[in-house]
Amino acid sequence: MTRPSAVPPPVTAVLDASSAWLPARLGEVEELLREQASGHGEILAADAGATLAAGGKRLRPLLVLLCAGQTGGEAAARAAAAVELVHMATLVHDDVLDAAELRRGRPTVAAASGRSRAVATGDLLFSRAFALLAKAGDARAIELLAAASVSLARGELAQRQDAYDISISEDRYLERCRLKTAALFSCACLLGIAGSHPRTRERGREASGDDEHDLAGAEEVALYEYSSSIGLAFQLLDDVLDVAGPPERTGKARGTDLLDGTVTLPLILAAEADPELSAVDLRALDPAGAETLCERIAAGGALDRVRSRALEMVAEAKRHLEGAALDPEQRRLLAMVADGVVQRYS
Amino acid sequence: MTRPSAVPPPVTAVLDASSAWLPARLGEVEELLREQASGHGEILAADAGATLAAGGKRLRPLLVLLCAGQTGGEAAARAAAAVELVHMATLVHDDVLDAAELRRGRPTVAAASGRSRAVATGDLLFSRAFALLAKAGDARAIELLAAASVSLARGELAQRQDAYDISISEDRYLERCRLKTAALFSCACLLGIAGSHPRTRERGREASGDDEHDLAGAEEVALYEYSSSIGLAFQLLDDVLDVAGPPERTGKARGTDLLDGTVTLPLILAAEADPELSAVDLRALDPAGAETLCERIAAGGALDRVRSRALEMVAEAKRHLEGAALDPEQRRLLAMVADGVVQRYS
Repeated sequence: MTRPSAVPPPVTAVLDASSAWLPARLGEVEELLREQASGHGEILAADAGATLAAGGKRLRPLLVLLCAGQTGGEAAARAAAAVELVHMATLVHDDVLDAAELRRGRPTVAAASGRSRAVATGDLLFSRAFALLAKAGDARAIELLAAASVSLARGELAQRQDAYDISISEDRYLERCRLKTAALFSCACLLGIAGSHPRTRERGREASGDDEHDLAGAEEVALYEYSSSIGLAFQLLDDVLDVAGPPERTGKARGTDLLDGTVTLPLILAAEADPELSAVDLRALDPAGAETLCERIAAGGALDRVRSRALEMVAEAKRHLEGAALDPEQRRLLAMVADGVVQRYS
Repeated sequence: MTRPSAVPPPVTAVLDASSAWLPARLGEVEELLREQASGHGEILAADAGATLAAGGKRLRPLLVLLCAGQTGGEAAARAAAAVELVHMATLVHDDVLDAAELRRGRPTVAAASGRSRAVATGDLLFSRAFALLAKAGDARAIELLAAASVSLARGELAQRQDAYDISISEDRYLERCRLKTAALFSCACLLGIAGSHPRTRERGREASGDDEHDLAGAEEVALYEYSSSIGLAFQLLDDVLDVAGPPERTGKARGTDLLDGTVTLPLILAAEADPELSAVDLRALDPAGAETLCERIAAGGALDRVRSRALEMVAEAKRHLEGAALDPEQRRLLAMVADGVVQRYS
């Protein structure tokens, strides 16, 4: 088992700090992901292949493996791969819209088939995630993953529904972040625990006087809170990055979300302090206008406020770890993951 | 429980011919489908709502219920709803491409958000299908549905890969039909049996000397063959309809598939007999050209050949029913479904 080559610095740091089991198990996850792309008698469409090869941050698999701990075994690797497949499916589906926006004339054949291929490829990755868990007969894991997938789609729909509306509340924004981002982080942690407490899982979620179950219950709550907090922090910082740039670091133009009509916390906070901003018509925005809008949001200090909100969330996440029944290495590495969410922007 | 109002003639005929349990159980399926559209604290996007309300043929749920039989109960209704949700998800995702094709200028905001909403709505329906089965803890049913979903996506990808290529073989075309259409028909039947043989299901698929298991094994093979045959026949006749029209009956222009680059059996057979046809450049086709091409395919007799191929498949399907351990009502109604696949075009 070799370490995946494309993992980014925060994940690399966690792997370096861990004992040998974690890099080995993440290698198994990569192997499972590769099988999904090349197995079953066909090669996945180029876009999924590229998504796979790019490696991604593998943050979600890492959460599964860390929460499952050293004894998580094959079940943890499988769950980690399934979570990443669902994440990749949403990335591929997100490209469907991007492809559309690049075309100014009638969609070319290539654009049209690119789009339909992206939809089908996302569906395939999605289906394989469930097939992977179903083959192992783990209904509880599938329930967790299906619930998270429902959240992801609801989050996307809510974002569409809110498009171009600068007056949405901070609570509504946070609810969207919970659905679109934090739900899958939490799913990853709960899948990890589910795998490490098979007896609890078999018995279902009913209340029980059993010690192991109580332990798992408390651990579930602690890791749920931990993962929700880092998931939200992750999304907040992503939204800061869209406004802050710079493009050479983020790989996309500043204000890409704004051009797409996606109103995020930096703009919400900035508009509260600057009424002229709430009157901006995002539908009329062009790339130059988006850049100007980003400058104005930054100038008012909204980015710093969102950043410190995210830092609070990370601190909150680490506090939840202290109360959980984890072994010292698990606790230390999960805290590193929480810090890593912030470090990618420092 | 009231009978769904939008069911088309073939399904209505089956319901009329059945004893009271079938319409009642199909009513439960409709109720479950409605819950998926309105539950969980939000209303599904309009396109999914419309797909639901339109009713569809409900052929796949009917197959689940009929194969499960009168004692299928709640598990059968749930499986039937899950299969229909996956079918609806693919319909909604198919719209993603159609929406794109209607736009000749730069995609409007409405078109873009329509497309992204369609992707998210399809994902939501898809996720809810798995959530519905997972809540009942039925890993075997989830395995069947996940495998069928993988097939659907692979079929769509294969169709994209083959786009505009008139030289594809009949075998390749049939393989695509198996993946895109027959797999979900078969999944429906196998889900029905899985629900009606819970003891077999729990034991898994290992060989066993047990009578009930042998019975279920034979029944599985018979119903798998039955459903594959009617699934293929269904797709063949759909492809005949695309060429034959008339638009006022099919609700779409003649040659819609051809314009989309989808080469189907009528064109494959026609091109074998008429070499000039194999030289046609489908990429250069406009609606008038598509109409002319349809005329030419029809004139050579290819439609009749495909129709009689489909009729043979239906006869084959009914022969498989004779060998299966079904009660007389099940056998009679499943035969009606097979005939219904043809009647919708007679």
